[in-house]
Amino acid sequence: MHTSSHALARLLGDWSTGPGPAHRRLADLIRLLILDGRLPLATTMPGERDLAAVLGISRTTVSTAYAALHEQGYLSARARSRSRTRVPPGAGSQPEPGATGRDLIDFSHAAPPAPGEALHRAYRRALDQLPRHLPRHGYSQLGLAELRTAIARRYADRGLATTPDQILITNGAQHALGLIARTLLRPRSRVVVDHPTYPHALQVFRSAGCRIVPVPVTDTGWDVDSLSAATRGATMAYLLPDFHNPTGLCLPERDRAELRLGCPVVVDETMAELALDVDPPVPLAAHHAGVISIGSAAKTFWGGLRVGWVRTDADLVQQLGQARAGTDLGTPVVEQLACVELLGEIDRLLPDRLADLRLRRALLLDLLAERLPDWTITPSAGGLSVWARLPQPTSSALAAVAPQFGVRLAAGPRFGIGGAFERFVRLPYSLDAAEMTAGIDGIAEALAAVRAGRRADTPPAALA
Amino acid sequence: MHTSSHALARLLGDWSTGPGPAHRRLADLIRLLILDGRLPLATTMPGERDLAAVLGISRTTVSTAYAALHEQGYLSARARSRSRTRVPPGAGSQPEPGATGRDLIDFSHAAPPAPGEALHRAYRRALDQLPRHLPRHGYSQLGLAELRTAIARRYADRGLATTPDQILITNGAQHALGLIARTLLRPRSRVVVDHPTYPHALQVFRSAGCRIVPVPVTDTGWDVDSLSAATRGATMAYLLPDFHNPTGLCLPERDRAELRLGCPVVVDETMAELALDVDPPVPLAAHHAGVISIGSAAKTFWGGLRVGWVRTDADLVQQLGQARAGTDLGTPVVEQLACVELLGEIDRLLPDRLADLRLRRALLLDLLAERLPDWTITPSAGGLSVWARLPQPTSSALAAVAPQFGVRLAAGPRFGIGGAFERFVRLPYSLDAAEMTAGIDGIAEALAAVRAGRRADTPPAALA
Repeated sequence: MHTSSHALARLLGDWSTGPGPAHRRLADLIRLLILDGRLPLATTMPGERDLAAVLGISRTTVSTAYAALHEQGYLSARARSRSRTRVPPGAGSQPEPGATGRDLIDFSHAAPPAPGEALHRAYRRALDQLPRHLPRHGYSQLGLAELRTAIARRYADRGLATTPDQILITNGAQHALGLIARTLLRPRSRVVVDHPTYPHALQVFRSAGCRIVPVPVTDTGWDVDSLSAATRGATMAYLLPDFHNPTGLCLPERDRAELRLGCPVVVDETMAELALDVDPPVPLAAHHAGVISIGSAAKTFWGGLRVGWVRTDADLVQQLGQARAGTDLGTPVVEQLACVELLGEIDRLLPDRLADLRLRRALLLDLLAERLPDWTITPSAGGLSVWARLPQPTSSALAAVAPQFGVRLAAGPRFGIGGAFERFVRLPYSLDAAEMTAGIDGIAEALAAVRAGRRADTPPAALA
Repeated sequence: MHTSSHALARLLGDWSTGPGPAHRRLADLIRLLILDGRLPLATTMPGERDLAAVLGISRTTVSTAYAALHEQGYLSARARSRSRTRVPPGAGSQPEPGATGRDLIDFSHAAPPAPGEALHRAYRRALDQLPRHLPRHGYSQLGLAELRTAIARRYADRGLATTPDQILITNGAQHALGLIARTLLRPRSRVVVDHPTYPHALQVFRSAGCRIVPVPVTDTGWDVDSLSAATRGATMAYLLPDFHNPTGLCLPERDRAELRLGCPVVVDETMAELALDVDPPVPLAAHHAGVISIGSAAKTFWGGLRVGWVRTDADLVQQLGQARAGTDLGTPVVEQLACVELLGEIDRLLPDRLADLRLRRALLLDLLAERLPDWTITPSAGGLSVWARLPQPTSSALAAVAPQFGVRLAAGPRFGIGGAFERFVRLPYSLDAAEMTAGIDGIAEALAAVRAGRRADTPPAALA
């Protein structure tokens, strides 16, 4: 894979604002694009002279930026060939040491606090059940009968009659979406998405070579007529009507009925149990027969429990189960058994978890009102994050320097296509009070630095 | 997807032998092809008239076979459209009730008996470690540091110096292979494989649209010169030199050094710890720098523990970790912690497990010598199965009727391309003594029925 100077210039967007000299801003932004995956690993970079011409800057600026990225381990070069993107071991998924010597405060994941006691109890009970399963080979292509039954029952409780053979167990919702994409999509398939939407879903559709058709989700939500029209002639739509990620919006009951779906629709219900301000929504599949629902235990319980599912017709369940052998041979037995236990307790566990998330959200909104009063927050109804609008289009510049101020941040353009959302950032409220307070402080300082065009006073060695 | 009459005729092979009337034999074989995935689900079947003409039989025979498959739930038809393959809920991965009212004896999986006590101990200790991990979000894109370290150490013990950043943790070896395929392969890439080889690997390469280049593995093993020559100009090779599946053969040390690899080679070490008759082989990657190794806990310990890994250079580890977001967001934390515990005990656990497998294999060979004396067994050195050669090319016919005699069997052609291996079946020795004895009895009866052209005396309702 390689990127042209023009493609890279589009990804960089308006990089004229930001702290420090131009070569540093350029290096910071390229590093951000590499770390958040918008510039995939092993991508061949454009030549220095060509990129300088396209950006309208001196070649020295580009070569100084490239040299810094080489030195930091974000570009590699083989003899006589162009630089390729990489990340140094230790960067990436793990928190890296930040400016202050602590771990970075991670605002880039919207992941709930683990319900420690309930998790422990669930896994302990799972181990009690394990001996029953040991005489079998342990491969679980469609999922254990008891978990398929428990999930079918939860759908029934939420207002959607479901039989166990309509359920496929997966290794999380992303795995579910990947299997659906393998089965239903081809290169150049048209896929309708909310805009903004969940970045990892965009990655699935991009890597399948699909054409992505964005339908706006604004701070007033979805336009049902536009959305209905966009589905006509599309291969598939991927929607997040249940506490949309990143905005936290919920599609109202009335609009659910009024949608006119012109293609198979995948509804990602990952956040559906996290109803903070409204009644839990009835699944969209209760209104429309062709809807394929995907769900997960990761947001309701904990991200380290890797269980998800698909709810669809029994024939497609079998077909997805067969496609699965191209990706893996089944979800771990112990994980499935623990998930059965947690679902058995969900009505007892949820009220406390929702109350806790409401408190965390209130704190985040207070901190934002105090420290960043000119940011506007889309009014959310549930989920794990808010979508904040900045007064200037400086989201990427902010995310690029935030690690120097102790914070890892997901820039708005990760949630869109074509460089959209440079005025937005997603802010999860799943961290604890101390982290959120320190994190918003760090973001406010980083933003001041971006506006003033200066860097942190003492950049850490690793990022200098 | 649809299949032509000619393509289906090739999959059916020589179906003239077998029990019962032609329409039953045809239905039995088509059901086998659907169940083992060689005829993918949702494939549109050829028209009755056309298939009858290509097979040189009456249209009535085809329509009677199709009608039976419809009735049993293996074909569906929408109004005015062709029949499409499906499987009825409950068939497929789960054991189905066999002729005798018991579960079928499953000779189709080569899955080891679970080390119950050690597994329980490992999961219990994993739960003791869990609290340390609960404050984190739980997503583990590259894997937990402690497991990457434990696997690197195991490679070092096996004779291959390895650092933790060379290890990516996956949800099993199949997941590892899927990630490598997403990253390195494109449609029409040339992929060299052992022939026979592991069927799920073939599925990965087929679904990626690759051209598969088979290199024979005979009962004397690999021809190093042919294999070296085949890799020249290929995009990738996928090899099983460490107790090859299905044959159990091991590539000798001398040949490992003499291979001349002309492309990146993925070595599937899933069976590598199961050395029954020879010293554990030094990984091929110790001889050749470009080798990518993949491994798994599923065969060494238990299939229900879904942890695998890739060993390669640190840059490719990062790249595979990024590709992973298109398939899933990480391996469960508890599974990884349990795997650390099991690897810590491996030197204590393995001797008993290997001794047990040797006994099981000896019993299987005795049973075969007694009940099926005209079958020839490839002399194996380890792993979980033997590769048996039948005197006639009746493997598919045998597998198709075996469920009527209480046994689920993997036909030889699953392990090859182009209908090869109709004279072979893979027989795992991972079942217990009673199951193996009853299973070989069932296979012997099924084979007698195939030879005599008769069916089981009382076909079960579900399969009639």
